[in-house]
Amino acid sequence: MGRIRPPEFHPAVVVIDMQNGFCARGGSYEKHGTYIGADINVYRKIIPNVKKIIDTCHELRIPIFYTQQVREASGIDLLTRLHRIIPKRRLEFVKIPACVRGTWDAEIIDELRPTKDDLIVVKRRDSAFQDTELELWLRSLGADTVILTGVDTCICVENSIREGFNRGYDVILVEDAVASSWPELHKATLMKVRGSFGMVLTTEQLIDMLHTTRRRASAFRLSMEYL
Amino acid sequence: MGRIRPPEFHPAVVVIDMQNGFCARGGSYEKHGTYIGADINVYRKIIPNVKKIIDTCHELRIPIFYTQQVREASGIDLLTRLHRIIPKRRLEFVKIPACVRGTWDAEIIDELRPTKDDLIVVKRRDSAFQDTELELWLRSLGADTVILTGVDTCICVENSIREGFNRGYDVILVEDAVASSWPELHKATLMKVRGSFGMVLTTEQLIDMLHTTRRRASAFRLSMEYL
Amino acid sequence: MGRIRPPEFHPAVVVIDMQNGFCARGGSYEKHGTYIGADINVYRKIIPNVKKIIDTCHELRIPIFYTQQVREASGIDLLTRLHRIIPKRRLEFVKIPACVRGTWDAEIIDELRPTKDDLIVVKRRDSAFQDTELELWLRSLGADTVILTGVDTCICVENSIREGFNRGYDVILVEDAVASSWPELHKATLMKVRGSFGMVLTTEQLIDMLHTTRRRASAFRLSMEYL
Amino acid sequence: MGRIRPPEFHPAVVVIDMQNGFCARGGSYEKHGTYIGADINVYRKIIPNVKKIIDTCHELRIPIFYTQQVREASGIDLLTRLHRIIPKRRLEFVKIPACVRGTWDAEIIDELRPTKDDLIVVKRRDSAFQDTELELWLRSLGADTVILTGVDTCICVENSIREGFNRGYDVILVEDAVASSWPELHKATLMKVRGSFGMVLTTEQLIDMLHTTRRRASAFRLSMEYL
Repeated sequence: MGRIRPPEFHPAVVVIDMQNGFCARGGSYEKHGTYIGADINVYRKIIPNVKKIIDTCHELRIPIFYTQQVREASGIDLLTRLHRIIPKRRLEFVKIPACVRGTWDAEIIDELRPTKDDLIVVKRRDSAFQDTELELWLRSLGADTVILTGVDTCICVENSIREGFNRGYDVILVEDAVASSWPELHKATLMKVRGSFGMVLTTEQLIDMLHTTRRRASAFRLSMEYL
Repeated sequence: MGRIRPPEFHPAVVVIDMQNGFCARGGSYEKHGTYIGADINVYRKIIPNVKKIIDTCHELRIPIFYTQQVREASGIDLLTRLHRIIPKRRLEFVKIPACVRGTWDAEIIDELRPTKDDLIVVKRRDSAFQDTELELWLRSLGADTVILTGVDTCICVENSIREGFNRGYDVILVEDAVASSWPELHKATLMKVRGSFGMVLTTEQLIDMLHTTRRRASAFRLSMEYL
Repeated sequence: MGRIRPPEFHPAVVVIDMQNGFCARGGSYEKHGTYIGADINVYRKIIPNVKKIIDTCHELRIPIFYTQQVREASGIDLLTRLHRIIPKRRLEFVKIPACVRGTWDAEIIDELRPTKDDLIVVKRRDSAFQDTELELWLRSLGADTVILTGVDTCICVENSIREGFNRGYDVILVEDAVASSWPELHKATLMKVRGSFGMVLTTEQLIDMLHTTRRRASAFRLSMEYL
Repeated sequence: MGRIRPPEFHPAVVVIDMQNGFCARGGSYEKHGTYIGADINVYRKIIPNVKKIIDTCHELRIPIFYTQQVREASGIDLLTRLHRIIPKRRLEFVKIPACVRGTWDAEIIDELRPTKDDLIVVKRRDSAFQDTELELWLRSLGADTVILTGVDTCICVENSIREGFNRGYDVILVEDAVASSWPELHKATLMKVRGSFGMVLTTEQLIDMLHTTRRRASAFRLSMEYL
């Protein structure tokens, strides 16, 4: 069993890249994503679970961070400005003008629209921690555990998990509130998190743990049986 | 095809964690690693390929960085000092006193012993970039491409790839010069690099590309057919 | 003299915190800043010089980054969330609700209003490099030299100089296009930059160097006589 | 007055660059430093105060970090590899082969020799936080306040203060346990810390605060009268 320190914890939820460009009908991925293998139906399937988690967090006053992957209209931040080696699939992705800052495409999807108390983290690269204020804000809130939801499991979600863990944050991955267009890579991420980086829960297990422990104690407590 | 800019490139090789504790007969992993699923035979199988790459680099004057994962004897940098959530397997790993700074266990294995011109990067966490001088040194040398070898494919190698790519370095993964104790995760890393982060070559392809392009030109050139 | 490598250079201008809250009539500092010693007249005096530099950059196609120091209305990023030790003056500053994100106070002053080709870097702490995309963008543009203008010389400007220099960027401080409410600290920053971090030029010298070298060569060239 | 949160604090002392090369008789600075204005007599004057602080910390079990500024014999990390603009004084400094890794010059001076429980942080640039494990270790120890001692006040000490403060650490500068070869810049650093970054104490005040509060309480407490 993996318990080390007293199990009170201070969670924050991070919702990765649930934006129109990636997940909405009429967004960039629905229009151009097939060619790169992106499957917005898989992405859209998790919306109800992410919604349940968000509602629970609002009720229990757990902070929520939404990441918003953007690119500039000018193209200054395209991967092609810095890289010579870009895999074909990723290069096709770069050609889709997805989630340009300031457009509808870049907005969080309607179903998960942030309230004014939620926090938006604009990011340019894969990890929610890279070149953003996320860590400073987690510290300001005293949060020590990040609960990961959103897309795509094997890219931006996994980068955020790896970087978060290595910076010292505890990590919970919600397996049915993250999605990937590549099922075998989705599975690989889950296996790696279970083996090396953190805890994998279902939406139901997460919500149950948050509600139950809050009810029984003044703080949230980890159920180490899930490790 | 993924070619973007003129294909001259400035490579550096990074050899991840090929230390006695992880890869040598008599090291910590051989003695205690079975319990956590570590397979040093898989790790040892890549030694000849890593050696070939190192020899080629010495011949062609390509810089080589060896990472050395260490922990302090005092335990100050153990994951258990910061984390409540640690997967069972990783927790067992923490209990093995592997690669304590200053011990034989932490040294690079004899077969790959660095020369005095090679560079050692001492690291404390998974990525070769985290809290180390690696990036400053890559810049000093004008290197723009990191060629990844070593262990374990799905943890320290993949973290270094993801962080390197996102910081703007081009990435080449040498598939038979990296190894993992978990074959399906090894495969997943390769698939992800091919789809999102860089180029995957065999040792033979890499050495051929370095030799051939050096011979034909004053600079190394990328063979974009591999993308 | 300090010349080391061929003197072609790729400059970018960084305009630090020239926002209504700090520099405009009717902004937070004019209304509440006297108490903390802020002197917006000193800040406003540099506006014509910063404008001249910006106009020159637009003409010569040198990229311009404007930093925008913001705080959240919710107070999540206040220093008081993280610090117990805050000097009285800085604590008074925290109490002034200056430059809240989304308000007029946080906007760049009218006199220096960015064009759509200029880049905005939203920052939360003193340095323009901390937790921002500035470095990624400098790399995308191939910029190797940052020319610093704006306010306050001894806090945000100096932090950006120190961090930029130590990350490997060359630094030029424009002495009459930066300003401080504390004259002796302004002087100390200049002395330190001259001794340890970079080059100090007047607006006239800078513009002359940019124009002259552009005219004589396809690239900008450093006049090492200024070192 | 600046008190914000309950005044218990968890201090760690950082001793900046008290190495033979900078501070010992027979070290690089004594031999070659006059030309760049370095004054090792000023540096040596603080040794007794730094020693008193170290002894107090050992007694009260406060962790101590010694930074060790090094360069490689190969020259890979010289400023001249990355910079075109280097002030004359700093360039002269680069020419002095001070504190090469592995030499006597790079060792901490005898008078302050670390015990085996103290921690060494090898650094390559000005700030103790840049590219080092310092922050990870501060977190492992639960330290929230860094007490700065060592040399030179206006370069490495001030860079560490600025970066530490902006990362969220409370900062205490011990005015008679830091030294600079440039008296007016020493004064400017003190003035800036008092105005913007933290608390300035004498060695006697610091030791008194640590002893007294430890005696009266189980934790260290801040005396806010010093702010």
